[in-house]
Amino acid sequence: MSRRLSVSLLPGLHPPEQRGGTALVIDVLRATTTATTFLERGADAVMFAPSIEAAHALRASLGTGTLLAGERGGLRIDGFDLGNSPLDAAAREWGGHTLVMNTTNGTDAAHTAVQAAQHVLLACLRNAPAAAARAQALAQGGDITVVCAGTDGQVSLDDCYTAGVVVRELLGPAGETDFMLNDSAQMVLALTARWPGPQAALQASAHGQRLLGMGDIDLAFADLALDVTFCAELGVSDCVPELRGREAEGLVFR
Amino acid sequence: MSRRLSVSLLPGLHPPEQRGGTALVIDVLRATTTATTFLERGADAVMFAPSIEAAHALRASLGTGTLLAGERGGLRIDGFDLGNSPLDAAAREWGGHTLVMNTTNGTDAAHTAVQAAQHVLLACLRNAPAAAARAQALAQGGDITVVCAGTDGQVSLDDCYTAGVVVRELLGPAGETDFMLNDSAQMVLALTARWPGPQAALQASAHGQRLLGMGDIDLAFADLALDVTFCAELGVSDCVPELRGREAEGLVFR
Repeated sequence: MSRRLSVSLLPGLHPPEQRGGTALVIDVLRATTTATTFLERGADAVMFAPSIEAAHALRASLGTGTLLAGERGGLRIDGFDLGNSPLDAAAREWGGHTLVMNTTNGTDAAHTAVQAAQHVLLACLRNAPAAAARAQALAQGGDITVVCAGTDGQVSLDDCYTAGVVVRELLGPAGETDFMLNDSAQMVLALTARWPGPQAALQASAHGQRLLGMGDIDLAFADLALDVTFCAELGVSDCVPELRGREAEGLVFR
Repeated sequence: MSRRLSVSLLPGLHPPEQRGGTALVIDVLRATTTATTFLERGADAVMFAPSIEAAHALRASLGTGTLLAGERGGLRIDGFDLGNSPLDAAAREWGGHTLVMNTTNGTDAAHTAVQAAQHVLLACLRNAPAAAARAQALAQGGDITVVCAGTDGQVSLDDCYTAGVVVRELLGPAGETDFMLNDSAQMVLALTARWPGPQAALQASAHGQRLLGMGDIDLAFADLALDVTFCAELGVSDCVPELRGREAEGLVFR
């Protein structure tokens, strides 16, 4: 009997028949890239909070060493220590710190995925080969689902392209597989042949365009273009955030 | 100022900022192919009813010459005159008849599209070039939206591939355009290069597989495979069903 490899182009579009198994959550611009980078640089944990209020409550209960990171409309949330920039995450070591994150799309996607999956990993372009390998190890021959966060409730090319790269990695170099792909999995796979590389694909996406455009308008946002370039680097990280449990309303990734 | 060419991969995913303009609704397997074929073969009108009950009510009020056509799970609805087979629609002339249709995905998609668009056309592979040309004429330089019906609430490759063909036609042979494509429009365009042709794309889709598989199980459904082949014929029809108004709960296409 063959196993299923399903892609969900938005969190709400999870195939209803597929529960259990292993899920890879993707919000490549920028939440899952940023979370991966925090852990790669030594953070004790990354926690995804379902709301700004929940993030504050988690910091209050966790105490010293807890930092809040997140954005609305691409900008740092008022009262948070950090925005959602993977370059900021890469700029120092985070040993002794837990990063509590809340973002517009990515943290919601993870909370939705958790309801249907046994194992939950965070994937991005930087860790795509490692994330695919880890998912294969956890799945032990069972079903795998790739969940795209999307942007403001709309299907987003940046996440779908990244999902295509992850699917390609899961199928392996020969493309031979015991996986049965759903329609969306076949669709995202077609995207990987359409652009010359990840940088071009992210730049073509509406979300990528918006981040690049914000830098053009205001020098304070010039780093957003560098964020996009950083997010487009393929396979440079072996760090794969994995759901280890819950603490209050937060999802704990290590 | 550039105009928008947006694709909605499911009816519910309509870009919220885009209202008005011209919509092309696609349920290539099989509702929009069948509706196109009824009109091509002389039907006075095709009406999309929002439910089985509404279809019966429309026949009661319209009287003689009204026929009911539709499916659930691919099979003719009990008490209906016809199923949802485009080959049945092609088998005779329909002059003097109005066909009232209700299907699992396509008729709902049209009802959703109507809420957001000024003009609504039905598109399929058979009429793709003609539908694109008619949409351009109606849009008069304004926005165009392509709405995929999907299958049972899931994004479907068959409709998305067809949307890609329609987008390609709208962009014209040079691919030069004043259109601003949303992410989903870019994605479906990538699909047209992935399969050697429409027949291969429809056969790769879960919905195509299901229709082909039903023929394998029971000889009574052997024609479903022929339906898929018929639906895959590209650009063979100049007939483009266009919304002309409402009658009770029905959408009237001519």
